[in-house]
Amino acid sequence: MQVGERIVARCRELAGITDVEGETTRTFLSPAMRRANDQLAAWATEKSFTTRYDAAGNLHILRNADIVTQKTFLLASHLDTVPNAGAYDGPLGILLGLALLEEAPPLPFHLELIAFSEEEGVRFGFPFIGSKALTGELTEELLTRTDTHGINVREAITAYGLNPGELPEAILHPGHFGYLEFHIEQGPVLEHEDRALGIVTAIIGQSRLQLTFTGKANHAGTTPMHLRHDALTAASEFVLATETLARNTPGLVATVGRLTPYPGAGNVIPGEVALSLDVRHADDSVRHASVEALLATANSISVTRRVRITHTFKLDQPAVPMDTSLTGLLAEAAAPTRPLTLASGAGHDAMVLAPHLPATMLFLRTPGGLSHHPDETVLPSDVQLAFETGLRFLERIANV
Amino acid sequence: MQVGERIVARCRELAGITDVEGETTRTFLSPAMRRANDQLAAWATEKSFTTRYDAAGNLHILRNADIVTQKTFLLASHLDTVPNAGAYDGPLGILLGLALLEEAPPLPFHLELIAFSEEEGVRFGFPFIGSKALTGELTEELLTRTDTHGINVREAITAYGLNPGELPEAILHPGHFGYLEFHIEQGPVLEHEDRALGIVTAIIGQSRLQLTFTGKANHAGTTPMHLRHDALTAASEFVLATETLARNTPGLVATVGRLTPYPGAGNVIPGEVALSLDVRHADDSVRHASVEALLATANSISVTRRVRITHTFKLDQPAVPMDTSLTGLLAEAAAPTRPLTLASGAGHDAMVLAPHLPATMLFLRTPGGLSHHPDETVLPSDVQLAFETGLRFLERIANV
Repeated sequence: MQVGERIVARCRELAGITDVEGETTRTFLSPAMRRANDQLAAWATEKSFTTRYDAAGNLHILRNADIVTQKTFLLASHLDTVPNAGAYDGPLGILLGLALLEEAPPLPFHLELIAFSEEEGVRFGFPFIGSKALTGELTEELLTRTDTHGINVREAITAYGLNPGELPEAILHPGHFGYLEFHIEQGPVLEHEDRALGIVTAIIGQSRLQLTFTGKANHAGTTPMHLRHDALTAASEFVLATETLARNTPGLVATVGRLTPYPGAGNVIPGEVALSLDVRHADDSVRHASVEALLATANSISVTRRVRITHTFKLDQPAVPMDTSLTGLLAEAAAPTRPLTLASGAGHDAMVLAPHLPATMLFLRTPGGLSHHPDETVLPSDVQLAFETGLRFLERIANV
Repeated sequence: MQVGERIVARCRELAGITDVEGETTRTFLSPAMRRANDQLAAWATEKSFTTRYDAAGNLHILRNADIVTQKTFLLASHLDTVPNAGAYDGPLGILLGLALLEEAPPLPFHLELIAFSEEEGVRFGFPFIGSKALTGELTEELLTRTDTHGINVREAITAYGLNPGELPEAILHPGHFGYLEFHIEQGPVLEHEDRALGIVTAIIGQSRLQLTFTGKANHAGTTPMHLRHDALTAASEFVLATETLARNTPGLVATVGRLTPYPGAGNVIPGEVALSLDVRHADDSVRHASVEALLATANSISVTRRVRITHTFKLDQPAVPMDTSLTGLLAEAAAPTRPLTLASGAGHDAMVLAPHLPATMLFLRTPGGLSHHPDETVLPSDVQLAFETGLRFLERIANV
């Protein structure tokens, strides 16, 4: 069996460890998370790697350097999942990392593989609990947020048998000198371009807004067209303007995903429409200019159609660039696979780590672009290419 | 006090008779309906008019002709309301009719005023129970439909103390030779054109459809614009095409009132949109051609955007023309008020009666186009003009 096939088989084995029978569902510090970590630790122990939990429930697997050194290179991804997930979003990165610990030749630095306990944000409604423990960003405010049972993060950690007082010990130490995360693309680009792998240049920034269009609800039969103030036709014009701007701006994605007309009856002209706007780009200045342009469009629609349009900013998350030199080494290592260079449209743990140490990411093709779904797949041959790229990458770092 | 003011005062008095304290809410055969009928009967009895209920709960008030005749002219509107209604939608037509019974000079035909027990369709989910009793259209199927308490129409009639076995006696008799209904416009046209009254040429026909746009749900961050199959942008194009066609087709109104994207999350490209389409025109051939044109537009959107679009017809209700000669007489009678000639965009009892006897309708200006709302109003001076028009109309019929 090729290493790629073994990795896929292990992902499928982990996918059977779940909190909800018949699904793959593992949330932060759940019983299934403990069992998944146990399985992972068992594989690590077969090769005599050291394992330990930190106080955030992250499992650390350590392979020692062949020299005496503090230098430690990090490989990581997350072990938690969304409800009814696939087998690869998260675990694939961990099991590619484990394969590298198992197969890499002796290296002049330690390899530390981390299985993050939380990335998806399911249990507590905010993501990256695992990786934020490493950057010291688990603030008191975050630790007191509660899940649907009223249990807060601190209490959940204690209930799992860990000590939240030891959280500071999880923070990165000066010997950590780089970070690599493998992850499925969760999008259709690599497949569309017929590439196995993608070199991630940045996690793209994101603006989220809510817009409200207020016209006048009226009887659909008795109100002639020229006397209407239809909030939905105004909103439709905005939806299409958003699409047009994004189509004409390279790298921009803009989406209206939620749109609700009131009162929402077939025989009533909508008097109000609330909608969500999601705008993303790897360059924050392009993203900000695009949002400004869309708000100007909204304003002109408002004037033309005599409909009031208000907006609220919900999120303005800057783009996070990957480390240029580490990403350059990764691109060299991946060169035989003809990788695509692309930005990540979704958030990843690398986004949390990148401001604190040189970080880079390698994407694997996602058939159908399908993720967060039981039918999520990867090609074992792509996993093999990613594994081989990882080996060449570690050798390059060793020789820098 | 002018007659117009007295009519308005009586409407306001009836508005205080309600099933829900603080609102004006009266539904078919409710306790408040009985009290409202009692009040109406009391006013009728003051002038020695005969009153009787038919088996559908309609109150009939009869003023005898000054000669021996079977000929009876009908004046009617409905006494039931929508929940939390205004004071005029329905009752105004009845109290204008009562004023005509009170004030008209001796006439060579009987005047029969009917306060219909049900027009709005609130209690049993289908409208026109009152007027359909007169046309024999209360089928066994309709009589066994149930309200939210599981009581059917027949049982409700019995519980009110009436005998459903006597429904056939409510049917129009050969002496009924014409029908006039006063009603508020429930739209903004008369106000916009600065007219008090409107001569109704027809109740416009109506098509209702449901359309479903099926694209592909995808991650809003990871799916580039050119690889999307966004059901909402496709639906938005359809909404605007609908508006454009209606704006360019005289007399056409077309509305998308309900529109629901799935999954409806801000960070997911909508994979499906269900929407309602409501198309109305006084000329059925124009309406049908418009629906065909919109379906052709949907088809071309489907091809261009590679989104599947399906449709279902929910309603195809033909236009109902008012009687030409009776409407001509009404227009002559209203001439001093400079009435507007228009089609009704909403359904009315006249629509049920018109296929069975010559029927006509007079609209009164509705300030702000506002109806089905506690703030619904009329101008007493407009009511006065409608009353005087009614007097002249009855004299003209007497002289035909």
